[in-house]
Amino acid sequence: MTIHELPTPALLVDVDILERNLARMQDRANRFGVSLRPHIKTHKCIEIANHQMEMGARGITVSTFYEAEQFAAAGFSDITWAFPLPPVYAVKAAELNQKTTLRLVIDSKEAKDCLEKIGRVNGERMHVWLKVDCGYHRAGVDPGSPLAEELVRSLNESGNLIFDGILSHSGYAYNARNREEIQQYAEKERSVMVEFAERMRSTGHTVPMVSIGSTPAMSAAEHLDGISEVRPGNYVFYDYTQVMIGSCGVSDCALTVLASVVSHQPGARHFITDAGALALSKDAGPTHLDNDMDMGIVYEDYARKRLHPHIHVRTLSQEHGKVVCSDPTSIEGRFAVGDTVRILEHHSCLTAANFDYYYIVKGDEVTDKWKILRGRT
Amino acid sequence: MTIHELPTPALLVDVDILERNLARMQDRANRFGVSLRPHIKTHKCIEIANHQMEMGARGITVSTFYEAEQFAAAGFSDITWAFPLPPVYAVKAAELNQKTTLRLVIDSKEAKDCLEKIGRVNGERMHVWLKVDCGYHRAGVDPGSPLAEELVRSLNESGNLIFDGILSHSGYAYNARNREEIQQYAEKERSVMVEFAERMRSTGHTVPMVSIGSTPAMSAAEHLDGISEVRPGNYVFYDYTQVMIGSCGVSDCALTVLASVVSHQPGARHFITDAGALALSKDAGPTHLDNDMDMGIVYEDYARKRLHPHIHVRTLSQEHGKVVCSDPTSIEGRFAVGDTVRILEHHSCLTAANFDYYYIVKGDEVTDKWKILRGRT
Repeated sequence: MTIHELPTPALLVDVDILERNLARMQDRANRFGVSLRPHIKTHKCIEIANHQMEMGARGITVSTFYEAEQFAAAGFSDITWAFPLPPVYAVKAAELNQKTTLRLVIDSKEAKDCLEKIGRVNGERMHVWLKVDCGYHRAGVDPGSPLAEELVRSLNESGNLIFDGILSHSGYAYNARNREEIQQYAEKERSVMVEFAERMRSTGHTVPMVSIGSTPAMSAAEHLDGISEVRPGNYVFYDYTQVMIGSCGVSDCALTVLASVVSHQPGARHFITDAGALALSKDAGPTHLDNDMDMGIVYEDYARKRLHPHIHVRTLSQEHGKVVCSDPTSIEGRFAVGDTVRILEHHSCLTAANFDYYYIVKGDEVTDKWKILRGRT
Repeated sequence: MTIHELPTPALLVDVDILERNLARMQDRANRFGVSLRPHIKTHKCIEIANHQMEMGARGITVSTFYEAEQFAAAGFSDITWAFPLPPVYAVKAAELNQKTTLRLVIDSKEAKDCLEKIGRVNGERMHVWLKVDCGYHRAGVDPGSPLAEELVRSLNESGNLIFDGILSHSGYAYNARNREEIQQYAEKERSVMVEFAERMRSTGHTVPMVSIGSTPAMSAAEHLDGISEVRPGNYVFYDYTQVMIGSCGVSDCALTVLASVVSHQPGARHFITDAGALALSKDAGPTHLDNDMDMGIVYEDYARKRLHPHIHVRTLSQEHGKVVCSDPTSIEGRFAVGDTVRILEHHSCLTAANFDYYYIVKGDEVTDKWKILRGRT
């Protein structure tokens, strides 16, 4: 079967690029002497996670309890839920910990006390990471705050919890404008985390591991001294946002959306495809850069990884994508109803979460179909 | 069970508001003397569609072939797929037409020829609507163009297709700034469509029906003379976008997202919830208005339908929602980890498509759980 027979919109994974991305990141982790615990929130796919494990991943990272449940059921035995624990899930998490090693993340006394109580009541000793804010200012304790030290101390002293160490996410690396800036963000995350760990250790606390990670930082970092593990996720597919900020090139982007042209009026400078907001997502990509791509960009020649400079997805409604041409000669007599286009998305994680299946492709050949576990509890 | 026991993020439907919205729109259609064929792309839910049919809907409208398949399997016998037919689905559509009446939409010779051919080969006579651009400039033929008349003529003359009439979507009504402007947009759609139908009829063509619709237009239109049916969808839930453009009030919004506070650092002017982009969607709402809501807004008092003027969802990453307070005294000592908040979304259609289930609520009581058919072929 070829991609030309697929129902559209279809989500295509170029398996050669995927495998190269997986191998490269595992190589980088090995070279830096850190464990790789890939974040599967990007792909939500058992086959890809199995591949990551075969290549040497230490375990996986998930973003939701649903993902933890699904991957535990598929046999994954070491899972970090890298999201500040919503207390409403504490009891369920303790139950799931009997089937797999489920490592939780907290950044508050409330969440810690909640887990302590469960430990006391049912004897379930959960692994717990302390989330640290290394400058992104989303979640995590300020490493200079009294709360940070108090939580390190109480996690160390807890008889009901196993303290795994400190964990961060350098989400601010997405503010970079080039590879050099990513390297600066990556080094900031590394140094903030290692300094905090050393300070805690020098005052007598144990900090078993230091876990950091984002795809930009892990794609560009120059060394990771003092770090135990990294948790990038997006690198399996990359996307146009990663291209723009300097993490990768277009030829590293493994995920594309195949769409049908469904409307193209005579003389119009636009046509409509069936890849709308529920295919590409409404992520507009990096707003701090001169973003010339609108909501997605059409390949001129996929085999050569060449994007069309004049043909962009301008607006997305639920199921319609309006593709506009800045140069009208580019679409004259082309893109007839029934033709297909291949679109590079801004944000592969959100795009993947709109679909139920990946079509795995080599060239135009469809070699497999893999399930995307995008459900919710 | 109450909402306080639900896993978060949870999608809540206030059933009293839902029922009032359904009844009001059916009443409006009855009063205007038009059929109501609600667009189920908003809710994707058998229970709600059944309720719409019981109240008097003539059939349903869907946005994807998957929805057509699912609702046909559930016994819906009259379905319009109000999306320009992607030719790759033509054969499947003809097959499905043997189980249900599936009405298709085209706006090109290519799509018409494709259906003609299927009609000739297997004798399946499909119902076909001609999509007309009434000024929105997305899909549809220009009613003043030679192509428009040519397609009306050839659909009339076709022995293989059944011409249902002309169909439009007044998506530009979303550009309105108040109810009066919506009424102008609605009247423009109505008059463009009726004039086109009359012109075609006066030149000897049959135009059996005229179908129009959008939730803003159908919430505000003053009369619908010459129109046969309307296809609003969003009105079942409404949302903050509809409030802003003047379709409804906050008390008409039936869909909310219940989220847990998962991180709140001492002294911070923000907290984090577990309703991120994969709960609320990245729809930023109307950009042409002074949009004071960022990516979502927290209720101060849901029972009184009062939104918190100072507490907005500022940014969304995949599973994190960053909620920021413009007035720091509003969150001091409140919104602790484990508390829940109820959030009004910008775009209920895209929010619903992020979830697998609706929790049906009356006050804080959860009375039912309905499946959302959000899959893809």
